[in-house]
Amino acid sequence: MQNDRVKYREIATRIYELDGEVYESVGSSLGRAFTGEREATIRALCMLMYTKPDGHLLRNELALISNMARTIENKAERKRLMIEYDNILKEIAALPDVFGKVDILDKDRIQLNPVPKNPKMSSQDHLVICISRTQGSAGNDIGFALADQLKINYYDAEIFQQVLQRLEAEKDGVQDAESFTEFDRYSKPPRVGLKEKLRQFNRYHGLSKQDAVFFNMSDLICSLARTEDCIIMGRCADVILMNNFIPHISLFITAPFDMRVEYIMGTRNMNLKEATRFLKRMDRQHRKYYEFYANDVWGKPENYDLCINSANYGMQETIDIIKRLLDQQRK
Amino acid sequence: MQNDRVKYREIATRIYELDGEVYESVGSSLGRAFTGEREATIRALCMLMYTKPDGHLLRNELALISNMARTIENKAERKRLMIEYDNILKEIAALPDVFGKVDILDKDRIQLNPVPKNPKMSSQDHLVICISRTQGSAGNDIGFALADQLKINYYDAEIFQQVLQRLEAEKDGVQDAESFTEFDRYSKPPRVGLKEKLRQFNRYHGLSKQDAVFFNMSDLICSLARTEDCIIMGRCADVILMNNFIPHISLFITAPFDMRVEYIMGTRNMNLKEATRFLKRMDRQHRKYYEFYANDVWGKPENYDLCINSANYGMQETIDIIKRLLDQQRK
Repeated sequence: MQNDRVKYREIATRIYELDGEVYESVGSSLGRAFTGEREATIRALCMLMYTKPDGHLLRNELALISNMARTIENKAERKRLMIEYDNILKEIAALPDVFGKVDILDKDRIQLNPVPKNPKMSSQDHLVICISRTQGSAGNDIGFALADQLKINYYDAEIFQQVLQRLEAEKDGVQDAESFTEFDRYSKPPRVGLKEKLRQFNRYHGLSKQDAVFFNMSDLICSLARTEDCIIMGRCADVILMNNFIPHISLFITAPFDMRVEYIMGTRNMNLKEATRFLKRMDRQHRKYYEFYANDVWGKPENYDLCINSANYGMQETIDIIKRLLDQQRK
Repeated sequence: MQNDRVKYREIATRIYELDGEVYESVGSSLGRAFTGEREATIRALCMLMYTKPDGHLLRNELALISNMARTIENKAERKRLMIEYDNILKEIAALPDVFGKVDILDKDRIQLNPVPKNPKMSSQDHLVICISRTQGSAGNDIGFALADQLKINYYDAEIFQQVLQRLEAEKDGVQDAESFTEFDRYSKPPRVGLKEKLRQFNRYHGLSKQDAVFFNMSDLICSLARTEDCIIMGRCADVILMNNFIPHISLFITAPFDMRVEYIMGTRNMNLKEATRFLKRMDRQHRKYYEFYANDVWGKPENYDLCINSANYGMQETIDIIKRLLDQQRK
């Protein structure tokens, strides 16, 4: 403890003196972080080092000094002072309780995160990218092009639906009545009579058809993620994989409402009014679906690894960003 | 138009035949995307190509075929079919009205976005990174370390406050009464008597002191962003720079509430109850500040270029991600 105090005092003195030297080199009263008396300032700096909650104040003092030091015009002088600054930062980093010491890291999640520093990931794990997106953010186009560029499989709701139907057809030997072209995942379900309801009840083991589809879909998503590299669009796939402890990357692609309206007008031949109404309905249904199956608020940044505003980059640059993100993540 | 139809039909036929070949190579009934009659299927595919709103359905058919093709075990056969698939994709991309043709791109914003493909950015523009963050997401530590690694200046609320005070002190020749150590940006303002209010009214040209500070801060942020590379924490800096047409990158760093509570407990010597209460208060005040000065909802992913969940990566990996994002953005 006594030793620590000596160390603290030494560092505090060096910070104080660095400030003075920077001040002289810059030659402006704005260059000085510490305007108070020498001994009192050094004591205050020591305090900042051993009172944990105020670590960020020490950091701010250092930031002020280095911001000023970077403006020194004499190159040799600037270099000399920046080296001293770096050395001080290193000594502070070696102290037990200062800023930057406590990491923010979800230890459960990191085990499922295919980042390069994660030794838990085995080579048997696959690159699975779950992309949630708002309608009209070009998320599907981005996902499709990304899958194509990475040469991995691409799955979205309609493809899942087709795969499920065929799996079921193989099992039952009959094609499900709900065919691909009729399928509209967001449209109101048709009115179902009591007889049909009872038939479905027996068929789906007491689940509503919608829930049965969801559970079948969940099984399918898990088995895909366990066996191949792929991109999965929507379907709360990130939540499903998280709950099943399967490694994956989760992305959310969105864009401001007015940009999405423009995109919809361009891709769906709608006028402003139609596109606006369409998007509002889609957002509402998307939100409901997510809230129901994921039991959380849709589109909160903390529920994903990364959220990207596609309108600020455009499609190709968004794809490039995701690829840059992955480059180091893959071995 | 007649020519286009011939082209559509040719592509549709190639898609149909590719599907058949993939089906044969995979040897499973699941391998076949098109189970209907040849002529009807080709006509349906043609329709998908010239009815714009259904472009994504065509993409899905292709995705199904390529997903299957990738499972072909015979390497030479797989390569041959994937080349045909790529060729078909290229021919479709050359058609006038299909999926992936309409980009989602905010043309106003992209002019302010330092991306490599942006010719509007001049070499006089600076690398300005605005980082918004929730309390307890380690956003400040990440920003500080990032500034240090990029060797650019770091500014946060307290540093701005100090700089403003000194600028004011230089101007007025007196130090502002509100000193650094007393300054708490989120605490309730002290009760101000009528006399003091009048004095402030005259001093700040009719603005409340809080608003005057905000406007001074805005000026400072703009002049910094015009003259140097830097990282600016919070202060709605992204909104301020956007409104002043100054190029910048906007990031939002956050983490799930429980992870942030843990971080606060670790960095501020608080127990669970204190940390929870502290965070809730901070989030509320952060939200209010943002809503008041930015006139928008705080923490919506579409208001930033990129949102990062720091808990899913940890501090160092978050910094690495941002650096990877920047690598190609800087010349």
